Amino acid sequence: MITILTGGTGGAKFVQGMVKVADPREVTVIVNTGDDLHWWGLHVSPDIDSVVYALGGQLSQERGWGLEGDTFECLARMKQFGSDAWFQLGDRDLATHLRRTELLRNGATLSEATAGIAASFGIQSRILPMSDDGVETRVVTDSGELSFQEYFVRERWQPAVQGVYFCSADNAAPAPGVTEAIQKADAVFLAPSNPITSLGPILAVPGIREALRRTGAKVVAISPIIGGHAVSGPAAELMKSAELPVSCAGVAQAFRDFLDVLIIDDADAQRSAEIEALGVHAFVASTMMHSDTDKLALARAALAAAEIQRKVAP
Amino acid sequence: MITILTGGTGGAKFVQGMVKVADPREVTVIVNTGDDLHWWGLHVSPDIDSVVYALGGQLSQERGWGLEGDTFECLARMKQFGSDAWFQLGDRDLATHLRRTELLRNGATLSEATAGIAASFGIQSRILPMSDDGVETRVVTDSGELSFQEYFVRERWQPAVQGVYFCSADNAAPAPGVTEAIQKADAVFLAPSNPITSLGPILAVPGIREALRRTGAKVVAISPIIGGHAVSGPAAELMKSAELPVSCAGVAQAFRDFLDVLIIDDADAQRSAEIEALGVHAFVASTMMHSDTDKLALARAALAAAEIQRKVAP
Repeated sequence: MITILTGGTGGAKFVQGMVKVADPREVTVIVNTGDDLHWWGLHVSPDIDSVVYALGGQLSQERGWGLEGDTFECLARMKQFGSDAWFQLGDRDLATHLRRTELLRNGATLSEATAGIAASFGIQSRILPMSDDGVETRVVTDSGELSFQEYFVRERWQPAVQGVYFCSADNAAPAPGVTEAIQKADAVFLAPSNPITSLGPILAVPGIREALRRTGAKVVAISPIIGGHAVSGPAAELMKSAELPVSCAGVAQAFRDFLDVLIIDDADAQRSAEIEALGVHAFVASTMMHSDTDKLALARAALAAAEIQRKVAP
Repeated sequence: MITILTGGTGGAKFVQGMVKVADPREVTVIVNTGDDLHWWGLHVSPDIDSVVYALGGQLSQERGWGLEGDTFECLARMKQFGSDAWFQLGDRDLATHLRRTELLRNGATLSEATAGIAASFGIQSRILPMSDDGVETRVVTDSGELSFQEYFVRERWQPAVQGVYFCSADNAAPAPGVTEAIQKADAVFLAPSNPITSLGPILAVPGIREALRRTGAKVVAISPIIGGHAVSGPAAELMKSAELPVSCAGVAQAFRDFLDVLIIDDADAQRSAEIEALGVHAFVASTMMHSDTDKLALARAALAAAEIQRKVAP
């Protein structure tokens, strides 16, 4: 059994690779919901959708979000009406949010709604929100306090970040199955996602970090930082605001209380000793996922790092 | 000033003609909202939308409802999810309902939401819902009690109708401007709409029927029944259930307490005396609206019937 904690685009790619090298039915994905938003009255779960679309083989490769080949007729009309339109929903994508909102309105939990939607996409892996309770990532910036999507999409992560907090996290419980999936896994992976706003909200839900500390499984993270820069998005700025070094060592530092292995990119091989000094084993691999081949290779490297698959001598 | 009471497709066509022969800024349209429904969590006002789309020049000619050239990507996905899909919403149409729901959620009345949407369509006429309060047309049938859309769209008006009532009508007030538009008009027209479920709900709102009785304006209706048959839809079945003759005389009977003139089709000319006997003046014209020319001709006939335009001797 494999459990993956993820948020964002890099995480969705990693999960895509993993279900091709492992039995997808043995994979549980725990997803960040701190980015969730109410948009046009609908409950939108961007990170859950990215995983669902990725595993359903329908994630837009061009955009990195939303559905492949989607149209934007409704959005164009909403702009004409003068409604907010900076968060873009495609016409087919819209059905996901209408459906989720309908299921929630009818009394389903977010876990149940997610399971129903994932089943419609023919997904065999288990996708769990980090919590069925609302937790909202708040980004405190020089231009005021913003929701994550306001910061990331609307403001294109330009405002200087003072700090991040997770509203209502203290009152949230892990969704059913989350702590069990961490405790009973053979390996737990933290996808190459932003450690502050993608993995941070998951770790802020009481009980999840403790489960990671206590699990008998190897806990392996993939650094989303290569050579002092984020592979994509505002991870560097957010790590700075959390007073973490912007490097794979900073990632190791953020997770050192539960992390066994950090997979770092070939380009960062010289930093291995720095990571080992933090009590985390460094595993060097090619971590960039440009192609499907790259995704498979990284998933295999991750399994090797967790020693689930025995390394075959060359 | 011209005021039109309307619901349904025939009514939208009539309004389309009227704004081309009269100054559109002098036209107020009072629309049935008894057909409104909550669909996928959105507030849908089918009759208001038909008038808005018709006056905005975007009503689908082929379908008779929804927007010309609309796509149905979201609907196809909702079907795949197993959501109800018998009420069809196009992708662009969806924006209207998302926008209306958003405005209502933000505290707007249905009148205000309608005005905002109509303005986006560049409509110069005033479109008023019959009421800002919820009134729901309920159709009691041999297969149980149904909402109007369940009866009309889902069941394709097949169940035998025992009766119709308008839930909460007694507690509803006319929307702001409705009774004034009837009282201050030079002429009031009842569009060729179903007298039971399109015009019936409007007349059931306390104060509206009284305003029609008291207005100094000529009150003119166009019969939606020609030769004992409804031009479209279930008007005949519904009139039967209300124990009205299915004929233009039945229409005159339904409205005789406030009606000055009933426009009947050429095909019904022989029924004029029957209508006059009810105390309603009969005005014979060609009432079928196949083409834009037909719509203009009927609007001109309606103005003539109201004696707003003096008849020019042939």
